[in-house]
Amino acid sequence: MKAYEFQSFGLEHLRIVERPRPQPGPSQALVRMRACSLNYRDLMVVRGHYNPKMPLPRVPFSDGCGIVEAVGPNVSRVKAGDRVMPIFMQTWIDGPLTDEKSRSALGGAIDGVLTEFVALDAEGLVHVPPHLSDDQAACLPCAAVTAWNALVTQGRLKAGDTVLAQGTGGVSLFALQFARMHGARVIITSGSDEKLKRARDLGADEGINYKSTVDWEDAALALTGGVGADHVVEVGGAGTLERSLRAVRHMGIVSQIGVLTGVTNDVNIAPILMKHIRLQGIYVGSRAMFEAMNRAITQSKLVPAVDLAFPFDQAADALHHMESGAHFGKIVVRLNP
Amino acid sequence: MKAYEFQSFGLEHLRIVERPRPQPGPSQALVRMRACSLNYRDLMVVRGHYNPKMPLPRVPFSDGCGIVEAVGPNVSRVKAGDRVMPIFMQTWIDGPLTDEKSRSALGGAIDGVLTEFVALDAEGLVHVPPHLSDDQAACLPCAAVTAWNALVTQGRLKAGDTVLAQGTGGVSLFALQFARMHGARVIITSGSDEKLKRARDLGADEGINYKSTVDWEDAALALTGGVGADHVVEVGGAGTLERSLRAVRHMGIVSQIGVLTGVTNDVNIAPILMKHIRLQGIYVGSRAMFEAMNRAITQSKLVPAVDLAFPFDQAADALHHMESGAHFGKIVVRLNP
Amino acid sequence: MKAYEFQSFGLEHLRIVERPRPQPGPSQALVRMRACSLNYRDLMVVRGHYNPKMPLPRVPFSDGCGIVEAVGPNVSRVKAGDRVMPIFMQTWIDGPLTDEKSRSALGGAIDGVLTEFVALDAEGLVHVPPHLSDDQAACLPCAAVTAWNALVTQGRLKAGDTVLAQGTGGVSLFALQFARMHGARVIITSGSDEKLKRARDLGADEGINYKSTVDWEDAALALTGGVGADHVVEVGGAGTLERSLRAVRHMGIVSQIGVLTGVTNDVNIAPILMKHIRLQGIYVGSRAMFEAMNRAITQSKLVPAVDLAFPFDQAADALHHMESGAHFGKIVVRLNP
Amino acid sequence: MKAYEFQSFGLEHLRIVERPRPQPGPSQALVRMRACSLNYRDLMVVRGHYNPKMPLPRVPFSDGCGIVEAVGPNVSRVKAGDRVMPIFMQTWIDGPLTDEKSRSALGGAIDGVLTEFVALDAEGLVHVPPHLSDDQAACLPCAAVTAWNALVTQGRLKAGDTVLAQGTGGVSLFALQFARMHGARVIITSGSDEKLKRARDLGADEGINYKSTVDWEDAALALTGGVGADHVVEVGGAGTLERSLRAVRHMGIVSQIGVLTGVTNDVNIAPILMKHIRLQGIYVGSRAMFEAMNRAITQSKLVPAVDLAFPFDQAADALHHMESGAHFGKIVVRLNP
Repeated sequence: MKAYEFQSFGLEHLRIVERPRPQPGPSQALVRMRACSLNYRDLMVVRGHYNPKMPLPRVPFSDGCGIVEAVGPNVSRVKAGDRVMPIFMQTWIDGPLTDEKSRSALGGAIDGVLTEFVALDAEGLVHVPPHLSDDQAACLPCAAVTAWNALVTQGRLKAGDTVLAQGTGGVSLFALQFARMHGARVIITSGSDEKLKRARDLGADEGINYKSTVDWEDAALALTGGVGADHVVEVGGAGTLERSLRAVRHMGIVSQIGVLTGVTNDVNIAPILMKHIRLQGIYVGSRAMFEAMNRAITQSKLVPAVDLAFPFDQAADALHHMESGAHFGKIVVRLNP
Repeated sequence: MKAYEFQSFGLEHLRIVERPRPQPGPSQALVRMRACSLNYRDLMVVRGHYNPKMPLPRVPFSDGCGIVEAVGPNVSRVKAGDRVMPIFMQTWIDGPLTDEKSRSALGGAIDGVLTEFVALDAEGLVHVPPHLSDDQAACLPCAAVTAWNALVTQGRLKAGDTVLAQGTGGVSLFALQFARMHGARVIITSGSDEKLKRARDLGADEGINYKSTVDWEDAALALTGGVGADHVVEVGGAGTLERSLRAVRHMGIVSQIGVLTGVTNDVNIAPILMKHIRLQGIYVGSRAMFEAMNRAITQSKLVPAVDLAFPFDQAADALHHMESGAHFGKIVVRLNP
Repeated sequence: MKAYEFQSFGLEHLRIVERPRPQPGPSQALVRMRACSLNYRDLMVVRGHYNPKMPLPRVPFSDGCGIVEAVGPNVSRVKAGDRVMPIFMQTWIDGPLTDEKSRSALGGAIDGVLTEFVALDAEGLVHVPPHLSDDQAACLPCAAVTAWNALVTQGRLKAGDTVLAQGTGGVSLFALQFARMHGARVIITSGSDEKLKRARDLGADEGINYKSTVDWEDAALALTGGVGADHVVEVGGAGTLERSLRAVRHMGIVSQIGVLTGVTNDVNIAPILMKHIRLQGIYVGSRAMFEAMNRAITQSKLVPAVDLAFPFDQAADALHHMESGAHFGKIVVRLNP
Repeated sequence: MKAYEFQSFGLEHLRIVERPRPQPGPSQALVRMRACSLNYRDLMVVRGHYNPKMPLPRVPFSDGCGIVEAVGPNVSRVKAGDRVMPIFMQTWIDGPLTDEKSRSALGGAIDGVLTEFVALDAEGLVHVPPHLSDDQAACLPCAAVTAWNALVTQGRLKAGDTVLAQGTGGVSLFALQFARMHGARVIITSGSDEKLKRARDLGADEGINYKSTVDWEDAALALTGGVGADHVVEVGGAGTLERSLRAVRHMGIVSQIGVLTGVTNDVNIAPILMKHIRLQGIYVGSRAMFEAMNRAITQSKLVPAVDLAFPFDQAADALHHMESGAHFGKIVVRLNP
């Protein structure tokens, strides 16, 4: 079978290799992958910026959708023919995250899913909401679960709350959609008026162009009567944190998710204290969260925003497209067409 | 000014009397009532079934909408001309309910709002969501806050949950609307196919006619794959509790709200233990809950289901209409047309 | 090996039989039982009052402590020589209870632990706090986890709260100890002044003799300044529920645990609504709760109250002793002396 | 009457002045102060480091204990002769903090309590636990409520948890005491072995000298089996935050309380994400928290650790003593001896 791997860090070292098709172990399912989606993390992983000590070669990508081809003798959770998605951390089933569970992430700690076939423990798979295409389902495991965990599991979002989401990447658009699904108001930021228009078409109530309105946190305060947002979905990282702390209300929640603008910066922590802010780190989520989210997606017939789907042999192009920042929503790579 | 009062228990003793227009105290607002809505409790109050020892005469009704006519010198919360609703328990502002706060309910512990003017502490008023008519706003203080408290504050409802609501009275229809607002699935019961159709038009996903399907809890189980509903809005009381305990899932919540079928019955409590059920009593809610709900109603442009609006001099007819059970949603009495 | 079983319901049918020593499966551990403890449920099970349709023969008892004798090849959670306790529901590891998990309870749904050896999935075992004897550890799986779940997991007990515990059986004494461990105040009821004295020696702040003070709920109210207890540990069942609803404060929690006085009774549910009470069914708890509790027991060096330890061949006597109500705390049966 | 005030920033400008004794307004109580306690914030306030734009002159200090001398006609909450403490933010009664409530802090936003008499709204006072001396009670309003809010209200501390507290100042020692009160394990850091010994005498399980063990976070990890503490009480500020993020477990809570080492620093936020950490800002707490804490203090007979009590005319010396860092626990200034 064909699989992508990189033997050295760098997009230029990402290549398709021939590997033996895996056999499912007694508790495993063999999954024929149909589509994968990209996360910014994948770019960092391949570049070696995520974990410079990662053992190589490694198969990249954590997110995807496939069809169960065969199962081991102890498996009852899924059966051949089922459409499934792997969970991001293969052993985070329920309850709190632990160090051990965090060491089971696909396409990072262990080999990922940008491969024709993958054998995974059946406990590490969830079923696809029936109304979703393979491309759409491939978008859920990391970005959607992260947004769900931030707003619903940790954030206990309710109707009437205001959610501020940064940009129009995968997590932010899922945050937009989950917020609207729960009757919340959404303010979204972007550097592109065109993308703000598309976000409004997806349900955003307000858009702020952070290029023309550099102090976007002041605009966010003005849009909330000076109170601030209840939730800020912070994907920018250390470079935007101070603005997010200003944009959130007293006792509000800033979900720290991404590091697009870097992991380290000079940060003034005084607003955290004085405004009694909860800065909540979010690292994807458990299978239990994934399944709760799938019930919601199925009930609301939510459709993820897919930007572009690339053929299997253009995975590097897909990563370059992500890097360009031109995308709106999720980028997909298709397998087994 | 004109006001309703009853000097003895019984609908036949409910009459319009002339009373002096009250003056607002230093911390009070004088409110010119525009519309009141009925709750089943009002029927019980006037009949003497709610509290047989209630001091008489008493002005009935807790729920309404009015316009601030004047305010005392210490008042900054509202101003003349504001459209407001009184909160059900006048001293339950925030935090947990106490015995003392529970003794401040309008139209029960103290005089109610079926009167042309009422002077209330400004802390006991909230502003009306701008898109609502007076009739619609009059529906919120008891029924809507109760449904919000049950599902959102206590129930922490999230998208994808299943809510089972009994009947098509005020609380149940607000429960339906709040559940849909949060992306939840709604199963509603009624003795009338016509009402079930109207509930579906309001957003209910499923309807069960409890006359043709006596064991409606079995139908609810079947509709949830045998699992049971996440939330049951229990307005029936002791007579329906056992069925509700059967219809809810393991670790689900039954919100005990109403006593339409009586307060006392032979109850088998074993399912509470064995299914780890939370039976949560709900007694309306605080001003903080009311205000959070109003933000949600404003954001979602929710419109309460008003059944019929009666003129001021037909308040007894309005109560008879409620008693007949023919209504769908809230019954209103209009003042100061 | 020797094991107890009953082929028909009734204490008189409980007998020691010879069974082949089980072999651990690939994911199992073989445990040499050292001590078992009794719960009131065991009496109901053997009598056929718990589940009259239970398939027979059945090995009784859910609770015990033993030593791992051998493990299957896939087991890393425990190793030979480890002192362990089985969890009550063998598949309730973490997250919410489900119908399926509830069907894995030892000594009920499946064979129990009153046997010299038992083979259990390694996931269904937890380690014993080192300072506890085998007799003491045998007391934890059902009664202690139930009290922990009620007060800590569900009840979110904090210092300064008041806990009212009914009687001096296993759950109630663990509730007393956990409440004191968290800095809470404890009121305990009993029909015996002698037992009340012993409860005070264990840390109870107040004792009420429900024989001399029939309306013990009034005494509890008086002891809390008329406010009521924050938590009531309700082991009596339908027969005492109304008094418990009266003894708890507004928005307090009544944990419904036991059915000593029956499962069905005429119950007036009005106080649940009017006092905004949470009646929370408790059905033991998960392995995650058990392990959190063990950390607390280890930190505080808590020692369970063991009433009497019977030799293996006197298990029926132990059950008769429980039935007599003469015990204070947990009754133990010792194996493999 | 005598009162302290400063007309310019700087300890050297702190002086005793003669002011007219205030009269209680209709809803106010006049309190004769008996003792005040110092917080690090007071040093920052007087120096002008807290709010350089603070209007002057200002009476310093937020914390104290006094006796009600007289009350206005609308007051029923307290009466003459009652021993009371003011709440830190005079309008944060219950529910969430708002910007408006945060602008009512004593000795900062408004005049403080280092004065013979102060007139405060009766709603802004709480009663003193009877077993405490005036000096001891004066320690509670800021430091103790902060520690309670961090560990109990926000942190939902339970027995068996591990709490890491930095240093032996007021907040940290209350954290130690509340943690022990709830059956938790306590690790405390200090630069002094002598102080570590005193902390152990107060109940700390472990002490780490951060001078001899510079990488104290590694020692904390080792003491928790590599897992990390459940709660870190972070009073150091930006300078210690990275170490605290390392010392806490996955999904643990770092309560951001103090800024002893500065408010701004280069911070690597990656661990917040990857360990799913909650960094929770704490800004003292509400009256409801204060009263819940007082119930706990009364139940457990907790006695605050008072370092030294200075006479009224030596308030500047008291502040210099705090600045020296030589203290263990709270520093007090006595009035009206």
